[in-house]
Amino acid sequence: MGIIVQKFGGSSVADVEKIKNVARRVVATKLAGSSVVVVVSALGDTTDELVELARQISAKPPEREMDMLLATGEQQSVALLAMAIFELGHEAISFTGYQVGIVTDDSHTKARIVDVKSERIMQALASGKICIVAGFQGVTVDNDITTLGRGGSDTTAVALAAGLNADKCEIYTDVEGVFTADPRIVPEASLVPEITYEEMLEMASSGAKVLQLRSVEYARNHNVVMQVRSSFTDSEGTVVKEEDEGMERPIISGVTHNTSEGKITIYGVPDRPGIAAKVFKPLAAANINVDMIVQNVSYKGYTDISFTLDLDDIPRALSIIEDLVREFGAQGHDLDKDIAKISIVGAGMKSHPGVAAEMFDVLAENSINIQMISTSPIRISCVIDEVNIATAVRALHEHFQLSEEAVTDEAL
Amino acid sequence: MGIIVQKFGGSSVADVEKIKNVARRVVATKLAGSSVVVVVSALGDTTDELVELARQISAKPPEREMDMLLATGEQQSVALLAMAIFELGHEAISFTGYQVGIVTDDSHTKARIVDVKSERIMQALASGKICIVAGFQGVTVDNDITTLGRGGSDTTAVALAAGLNADKCEIYTDVEGVFTADPRIVPEASLVPEITYEEMLEMASSGAKVLQLRSVEYARNHNVVMQVRSSFTDSEGTVVKEEDEGMERPIISGVTHNTSEGKITIYGVPDRPGIAAKVFKPLAAANINVDMIVQNVSYKGYTDISFTLDLDDIPRALSIIEDLVREFGAQGHDLDKDIAKISIVGAGMKSHPGVAAEMFDVLAENSINIQMISTSPIRISCVIDEVNIATAVRALHEHFQLSEEAVTDEAL
Repeated sequence: MGIIVQKFGGSSVADVEKIKNVARRVVATKLAGSSVVVVVSALGDTTDELVELARQISAKPPEREMDMLLATGEQQSVALLAMAIFELGHEAISFTGYQVGIVTDDSHTKARIVDVKSERIMQALASGKICIVAGFQGVTVDNDITTLGRGGSDTTAVALAAGLNADKCEIYTDVEGVFTADPRIVPEASLVPEITYEEMLEMASSGAKVLQLRSVEYARNHNVVMQVRSSFTDSEGTVVKEEDEGMERPIISGVTHNTSEGKITIYGVPDRPGIAAKVFKPLAAANINVDMIVQNVSYKGYTDISFTLDLDDIPRALSIIEDLVREFGAQGHDLDKDIAKISIVGAGMKSHPGVAAEMFDVLAENSINIQMISTSPIRISCVIDEVNIATAVRALHEHFQLSEEAVTDEAL
Repeated sequence: MGIIVQKFGGSSVADVEKIKNVARRVVATKLAGSSVVVVVSALGDTTDELVELARQISAKPPEREMDMLLATGEQQSVALLAMAIFELGHEAISFTGYQVGIVTDDSHTKARIVDVKSERIMQALASGKICIVAGFQGVTVDNDITTLGRGGSDTTAVALAAGLNADKCEIYTDVEGVFTADPRIVPEASLVPEITYEEMLEMASSGAKVLQLRSVEYARNHNVVMQVRSSFTDSEGTVVKEEDEGMERPIISGVTHNTSEGKITIYGVPDRPGIAAKVFKPLAAANINVDMIVQNVSYKGYTDISFTLDLDDIPRALSIIEDLVREFGAQGHDLDKDIAKISIVGAGMKSHPGVAAEMFDVLAENSINIQMISTSPIRISCVIDEVNIATAVRALHEHFQLSEEAVTDEAL
């Protein structure tokens, strides 16, 4: 009997009625003939509430204790979901990360899974039980409780699917799946039925929030088939899997955007070897993730360096950059919070040259200036003024014929 | 360096300010030169709220899952208290029941401790850390989470004190200690500075709610000195320990009462061997705790049997008793919810005959009728009409000169 891993996020178990709804869905999967392992997040806003409680006690609580605190949210969910399944007349058993042996390193609050022991779950499945596992948490070799960071439950689910050699890992969420663009901006955006790991990674890292980046990486590395579905409908959602050689891929799978970044520019930096390292090493040391970097062509021995980063990280980054400007004797620095990044992603791009030029054309036709460009083999991203983002997303979505009718007509 | 175990109940950690207050108290003990192990209950009403959440999902949730759910309350407390101690500049480390090796049997929701492993705590204490342990919970040999039942945190504290060979186990609560009577009924009741395990057991089982019976039994069996103190004052509270041969004990240590029981009487039961067993076996099988039992002198081959029990258990007991009445062909049965039990407890009673007679006299002088009597070597209990309980407590407290002035004058 095949094993299916099903993951339900916090919004899917936000209240008692929703927990009962998840229980019915899980039991239906079991009755359809699969062994079922369920991974759940904490109920609704529980994690945020616990974080707030900790902040009232300490501005910077020790991370080991933070993990001890936060892990309780998922432990409550698994117990309640197991009860709801019992109430439907089926046998279930809940497990903490420790109990099923989700072993992590000791990077508290952002631990990485190093091993998944499957014995206890396999035993429970063999005796016909539905297994409910707390997402987001693990345990170090010293038995200290760890958490995997935001969205870590997706990674728990994929790691279990890999460890148990499951047929697939279903990620239930509050949207129908992966769309060709954000439906709030492009109402005619269409659901993407299949997508490769690479495309999904590019989409996740360029703004699509439906799946957590790390979980997709883990799935790709262990070849776990993921299926993103809605907790509230019966739609098949989006399947994320290895690129299928026989499959004709559309050139573009989707248009993504991200408005949660800002841009910092340092002007008049002496252009000598090692200068870029001197800028980005202290940022990395401060755990600030830099996204795009552009260094201008040098003019009279001086250059400008621009980079984008999360808005949240800007205050810390600025204090580092101010020191550097002084150290370098640079001309000055500038901050722009009103930028947006727009990306087109598609595995078909690899065999279709000229897609980038098409993208630039579309933006130009709409009088949208491009501030920065970055590319990968299957993605092109441009930084533009935030005020133009909706226009840009719609224009590119339209140009690449990504709406439902276009896809149905196989116009690509 | 001696070890002190300090236990704080839910009311002592009901909110962020109270948690900080506990942290200050714990740090003060550490600074005074002791190694400190702290046991905490769940914050305020957390346990009740979790129980309510479970009930919304299932009228009778599986007990293993109930324990999984409830254990999160204490896990949150230990993490928050550890943070508060860090915030004061001291090192602390929190532990779940599992992490410190509080091994229990598998009687979920009312598990009994079978072993306490002390290695991890001893290591942490040796490195100068304050250890914070989740009360109320343990783990089976199969790594399933268990809880110890209501008030189980007291037992956790005593078990740790025994396992760590601590100097003493301080139980912090919202009252000053053990009193000679309930101060809400007898305002001049005085604090009992010292009391033997036996007396404390009798007082706890006859109505004093300050300590949980099981924890006192565990302390007696392992000779752990307990000290009951207030979280909110510096009073020394009450020390509970082995009877000290050299110590002059007062005849009576306290007057206790209990109004949470009712009385069931079965009339006209055929008086033949085994009849009592037939009544009380099915009650025991239904997990109903019977307190006092009185069987009348037989008259013409028939007798009456009365017993007292918790008001909560009455509906279940009645349905059993109704069946028995039919089976025995007994005359009928009766229920009285308006009774109260009043007890006097004192180790000195053993060497002072006539105390029982004095008690009956005092009740008679106040025109209070006695319905049932039960005695132990250091306790005498009478069941009376509930309406008379305050009068009875005050009269006995006065007669045995238990008020502060009387004790100070050593009038006993």
